[in-house]
Amino acid sequence: MSNLSPTLKLALDLISRSSITPEDAGCQDVMIERLKHIGFHIEPMPFGDVKNFYAKRGTSGPNLCFAGHTDVVPTGPESEWKVPPFAPKIIDGILYGRGAADMKGSLAAMVTAVESFIEANPNHNGQISFLITSDEEGPFVDGTTRVVDALMAREEKVDWCIVGEPSSTHTLGDIIKNGRRGSFSGDLTIYGKQGHVAYPHLAKNPIHLAAPAIAELASTHWDDGNDFFPPTSFQVSNLNAGTGATNVVPGTLKALFNFRFSSELDFDALKSRVTEILDKHQLRYDVEWTYNGLPFLTRPGELVDAIKNAIEATVQITPELSTSGGTSDGRFIAKMGTQVVELGPINATIHQINECVEAESLNQLSAIYERILQNLFT
Amino acid sequence: MSNLSPTLKLALDLISRSSITPEDAGCQDVMIERLKHIGFHIEPMPFGDVKNFYAKRGTSGPNLCFAGHTDVVPTGPESEWKVPPFAPKIIDGILYGRGAADMKGSLAAMVTAVESFIEANPNHNGQISFLITSDEEGPFVDGTTRVVDALMAREEKVDWCIVGEPSSTHTLGDIIKNGRRGSFSGDLTIYGKQGHVAYPHLAKNPIHLAAPAIAELASTHWDDGNDFFPPTSFQVSNLNAGTGATNVVPGTLKALFNFRFSSELDFDALKSRVTEILDKHQLRYDVEWTYNGLPFLTRPGELVDAIKNAIEATVQITPELSTSGGTSDGRFIAKMGTQVVELGPINATIHQINECVEAESLNQLSAIYERILQNLFT
Ligand SMILES: [Zn+2]
Ligand SMILES: [Zn+2]
Repeated sequence: MSNLSPTLKLALDLISRSSITPEDAGCQDVMIERLKHIGFHIEPMPFGDVKNFYAKRGTSGPNLCFAGHTDVVPTGPESEWKVPPFAPKIIDGILYGRGAADMKGSLAAMVTAVESFIEANPNHNGQISFLITSDEEGPFVDGTTRVVDALMAREEKVDWCIVGEPSSTHTLGDIIKNGRRGSFSGDLTIYGKQGHVAYPHLAKNPIHLAAPAIAELASTHWDDGNDFFPPTSFQVSNLNAGTGATNVVPGTLKALFNFRFSSELDFDALKSRVTEILDKHQLRYDVEWTYNGLPFLTRPGELVDAIKNAIEATVQITPELSTSGGTSDGRFIAKMGTQVVELGPINATIHQINECVEAESLNQLSAIYERILQNLFT
Repeated sequence: MSNLSPTLKLALDLISRSSITPEDAGCQDVMIERLKHIGFHIEPMPFGDVKNFYAKRGTSGPNLCFAGHTDVVPTGPESEWKVPPFAPKIIDGILYGRGAADMKGSLAAMVTAVESFIEANPNHNGQISFLITSDEEGPFVDGTTRVVDALMAREEKVDWCIVGEPSSTHTLGDIIKNGRRGSFSGDLTIYGKQGHVAYPHLAKNPIHLAAPAIAELASTHWDDGNDFFPPTSFQVSNLNAGTGATNVVPGTLKALFNFRFSSELDFDALKSRVTEILDKHQLRYDVEWTYNGLPFLTRPGELVDAIKNAIEATVQITPELSTSGGTSDGRFIAKMGTQVVELGPINATIHQINECVEAESLNQLSAIYERILQNLFT
């Protein structure tokens, strides 16, 4: 263990803490101790049962925030793991343990990058901050979104943010996420009139009424996407009507649908287009709408350039910009007008048995984060 | 009780036997005893757990068969009944009890009609028969259909059949059923490819694939019906896709559908038209077909005329011919090439709490049945 880099030592320490969401298991205290030591001002920001903190060093100039989460997803059957999931181990250069890739490896790399940068540049320009939550893998109600609300309420400015989510696909730094699609769902009930299949004229079959409308929704072209986003997509995930009885025309039909949408559209535009189609088919219906998150997009500029350059200089590849995949806490941080980019290790094993990451890639990630600080603040 | 007509006495006896399908509870023995006494040759025809019998008097000439069932549907909560469902009682001229209308009242009327007719016409023309089952309200597997198979195997000829199902709507004899629509169902599985809503290009949503096909099936005009049948109707009774998870594109969709079809169509014609539509939409699918029964139709002729005349002479109304409503055992009997007509009491309360029938209407029904015998056999 004494031969290990500071990044790997810290990663092993964090992973050994069993912080299944929304637990933090002392991870944030470890990070806080280290950041305090190098002059950060620490602000614990717990909400409900969730531990969060915001920490900052510097008082003027642009604010670059490192964001991430200390919670991890459950382990699955521990007996299927090569090593106990919270007793991490490096075997043949591969670091195994729950959170190795998502995202305690990134947290360790952030801390050591900042330590190393400050040692070399104690009087750096700008402000460096951390926004850390233990509720990203859970319901994400009392985590980043609440911290962001509090920061916005006091007009804290965060210009740039690097989220440590595992963005890489085949090799460290091959992909950085400069945005995510919006997500938005509807719980649709279509009303008919229950009856007996032998007396169809006395019933109104909601399945028959709904089918053409669902067909139209499914075939609608919502937008073309843009340079950064694929076209908006609509999917019905669940459809249910009928009680199981084969001779009864059901009274209602239920459909759950979801949009993943580009920055060309917003909630209201989508909602009114759905409503228009349902109305056109003269349906009697209710919809409960759930707004999961607006799309966010960080266009190429100062932050993206600094990151690209740091990756090229450190691992000699040019990252690709991507907005694909699920949602992340980046959507909440982007609400502050912040440029947000996700950059972290290879995501191939996240949320799986034997989650792992190449040990050396965490040292490289720390070097990339440090180089970004140099590019922006020296 | 001693003032009651033989028909009402027999009806009360039959109803007092708790013959919840497929039980017979001794009802058939009571009928057999009475029929034996007036010279019927009795043939018990049990299949599986189901009691059935065929009885006949006479050896030549056309065969008129009275058909019916001794089983009844369950009672529902007995405490909600005016009288215990198997302790029948006449209150203010109304006979209450499970099976009063469907169809122990009819069975009693058939037996007394035949007794009275034979007393007056011991040397009648033709043959009179009974085909009685205790499995009409249940799975109807070991009941009438098996008896019919046995009769066909030995080339027993049944020219005319009166089924005692409660055909009347507002007043006894206002409607007789001279046929029933066919019934036919399909259990359809449409295959897509499961995936995550965030990666729609990797999935194939069976809901999206199915919707236009279901819309087309629902709006298809199958036929115009004919003078005796309404147009064929198609209904999807159940539609299910999805596991409840809102971010998963389901792998399959299940639909249960049912046809009620006129005598203009048959199984093969409908099956190939459904298949054609599914194929046109390029779906990957399986269908399990269930053939519930072909339509049957008894065109106006000797039997219908004899029945019409008997109703007019007894209760002074002219019955309407109808083929509407659910299926009945008539569909099995019609396979023998038999002219089948359903004629029985008012069906307003069948299968309900406080099932009942006007007591006097059973006496009238017995008189109508007897008049039919006179019209055909004297
Ligand atoms: Zn994560
Ligand atoms: Zn019945």
